[in-house]
Amino acid sequence: MNVAVMGYGIVGSGVAEVLAKKHDSIAKRSLQEDLSLKYILDIRDFPDDPNAGKFIKDFNVILQDNSVQIVVETIGGLHPAYDYVLACLQAGKSVVTSNKELVAEKGDELLATAKEHNVNFLFEASVGGGIPIIRPISQCLAANELDEIAGILNGTTNYILTQMITSGLDFDTALKQAQELGYAEKDPTADVDGHDACRKICILAALCFGTHVCPKEVHTEGIRALTLADVGYARSWGGVIKLLARAKRLDDGQIAAIVSPALVKNSSQLAGVNDVFNAILVRGDTLGDVVFYGRGAGKLPTASAVVADVVDCARNWGKNRMLLWDNAKDAYVRDYLDYETAFLVRAKSVDVPAAYADADRVFGTVQRLIRDGASDSEFAFVTPADTERALRAKLDTLLGVKVLSIIRVADY
Amino acid sequence: MNVAVMGYGIVGSGVAEVLAKKHDSIAKRSLQEDLSLKYILDIRDFPDDPNAGKFIKDFNVILQDNSVQIVVETIGGLHPAYDYVLACLQAGKSVVTSNKELVAEKGDELLATAKEHNVNFLFEASVGGGIPIIRPISQCLAANELDEIAGILNGTTNYILTQMITSGLDFDTALKQAQELGYAEKDPTADVDGHDACRKICILAALCFGTHVCPKEVHTEGIRALTLADVGYARSWGGVIKLLARAKRLDDGQIAAIVSPALVKNSSQLAGVNDVFNAILVRGDTLGDVVFYGRGAGKLPTASAVVADVVDCARNWGKNRMLLWDNAKDAYVRDYLDYETAFLVRAKSVDVPAAYADADRVFGTVQRLIRDGASDSEFAFVTPADTERALRAKLDTLLGVKVLSIIRVADY
Repeated sequence: MNVAVMGYGIVGSGVAEVLAKKHDSIAKRSLQEDLSLKYILDIRDFPDDPNAGKFIKDFNVILQDNSVQIVVETIGGLHPAYDYVLACLQAGKSVVTSNKELVAEKGDELLATAKEHNVNFLFEASVGGGIPIIRPISQCLAANELDEIAGILNGTTNYILTQMITSGLDFDTALKQAQELGYAEKDPTADVDGHDACRKICILAALCFGTHVCPKEVHTEGIRALTLADVGYARSWGGVIKLLARAKRLDDGQIAAIVSPALVKNSSQLAGVNDVFNAILVRGDTLGDVVFYGRGAGKLPTASAVVADVVDCARNWGKNRMLLWDNAKDAYVRDYLDYETAFLVRAKSVDVPAAYADADRVFGTVQRLIRDGASDSEFAFVTPADTERALRAKLDTLLGVKVLSIIRVADY
Repeated sequence: MNVAVMGYGIVGSGVAEVLAKKHDSIAKRSLQEDLSLKYILDIRDFPDDPNAGKFIKDFNVILQDNSVQIVVETIGGLHPAYDYVLACLQAGKSVVTSNKELVAEKGDELLATAKEHNVNFLFEASVGGGIPIIRPISQCLAANELDEIAGILNGTTNYILTQMITSGLDFDTALKQAQELGYAEKDPTADVDGHDACRKICILAALCFGTHVCPKEVHTEGIRALTLADVGYARSWGGVIKLLARAKRLDDGQIAAIVSPALVKNSSQLAGVNDVFNAILVRGDTLGDVVFYGRGAGKLPTASAVVADVVDCARNWGKNRMLLWDNAKDAYVRDYLDYETAFLVRAKSVDVPAAYADADRVFGTVQRLIRDGASDSEFAFVTPADTERALRAKLDTLLGVKVLSIIRVADY
């Protein structure tokens, strides 16, 4: 049985490396006499690469070679990845991908196409790097109605936040450091503005609740606006700020889904997840909370997740997993302003005692917070829980108060 | 397709409850038109139970009823559980169990019997309650050579340790509290002396490394001897004491396996695992560290793991998982005195400065620790790493020192 890899970047080259290094044990586990890498598709040349003889530039070579039964897509982005993957599935080849954008945007269609052609479309590596999470959700938790899933899904932002929390670096300095260490891209938008985490929570939500979730439906906030003052108030509250991606089943068939900075208590298992590590919390009705933790990125961890899927395809050849998502529905993701939450509010006023008294009047008693180094006009408090819409309306009624930041409080 | 449950205790009654409550979704996921609980075997009477009509007292009714294809064993202990399970497998029924003693003692034989009769013997619930760990190890991590596995596998002892660490209760008081809360048995031996954790690490080691590990081969120490003084020195070192169960592949085909209290740094993901929670850390060569965390016990979490296995058996009826362990080998578990470790040593001397100087001379420089409330004659230090045999020999050469306790230092 032959394998082709499309896209020879960090993950793709890692896949080739793992397939070569573990050839014998992979052949054994996949129950195939041989499982060999036949082609690598890339527009670039790699003349000195150990796989030099396998490079091709024409996708049709893969498509038309019936001996290639499993195709690994590690190109990234929507096009041409989507077009190639669709063509492979339609040609009766199983596809394994690490491309979260592809799965988040086209997962429902590609899963249906795989089923139609009795092959598999697997994407364990698209969320959480090497952490096994897709398969545990789709299989191991089969006795559970999963009510909720939340995670620290982006290593870059978690590294930056960890530096802000533990070393007192401000956002810009921490971002620069992350870039120097190779943890952040030169253009860090996809990470720091939350889009990467958003794609991943869409995939997880689709797995948990069975319906495709479009990234554009999910309210997404990044971490650019966070300050050390916010971090300080979080500390005095007894917690830390994390970029959380969350999805929750609501009573009426809708779901709540949001990506934003959020306060988690120090006692939470998510609070101690530092640096580039990821963690995913699954809340099931019979199970309680289960947390999966590990490196969310990196060449070999991600490649190992891809190869595990390749082994699965090979081992279960001819058998579709029957994992299916309903197509995206209108009004499936409820407006985030209707979610219940509490707020940590940081604000300014020329008369702080009066502003606190006013906040107590408007919200019912608020929890007052202090931090070292605050100016005389700065103050902060945590509100009781209410819908975000109601909280924002109440904030607007506070007298003589300028709101500097708002951070949601999570209950994990 | 019919199911029988043998043993109607906490887990068995939870399984019946989940099977009833989730009947429709389980039938759907298991791809069976119907998946029904037909019999419950128990020697006791439950006249007022909602399942009252299903109770039987004769195992042969289950054995001889060909419509019962999946049997759940939640009796516990070795006999008659082993005899019943063996007979069911030989009769072509798949078996799901939560019985760690059975799997740890007889796993190799029962897996081989299942294979021979083309049925399955599954035991996700035997380790970590509702945490999915058996299946991720056997399937999801298929591209990894797993080098090492370690965990907090016993909720009772972790609750007691948490009380000692966070509330300053001594062992006896914390144990009494755990018993009052139902977290510890009246006879707590299996938990506090480490036998429960030992069975679980044997199962995990067999899964990771492919060879059966007998519990009696694994050096096992419990937590009875731990004092608040030890907890205090751990704190001043920057960590906590946890009851760790560990297994590691060694270069020569042997494995290291041990259950004992161990120091973990506060920055470790295992340090923040408190109360009755469990956590399992898997270290793979391509993967790095992955941690699974959740409730390690409890009626519904454990029952949900059992039912997930039942669904798996039903869905893949006629297909053996081909999970096999080699039979236990002689000299497979290396003598624990040959493992590399560092020690936290707590001791007494009439001349502490001289004793410290002597320790520096014997071990090379030791890390000196202090704690509040220590007597003038008490002192403590952490040694450099060496084999346990060498460390103990060196300790014996210290002059005028009475060793009060020794705790191993872990590197997770």
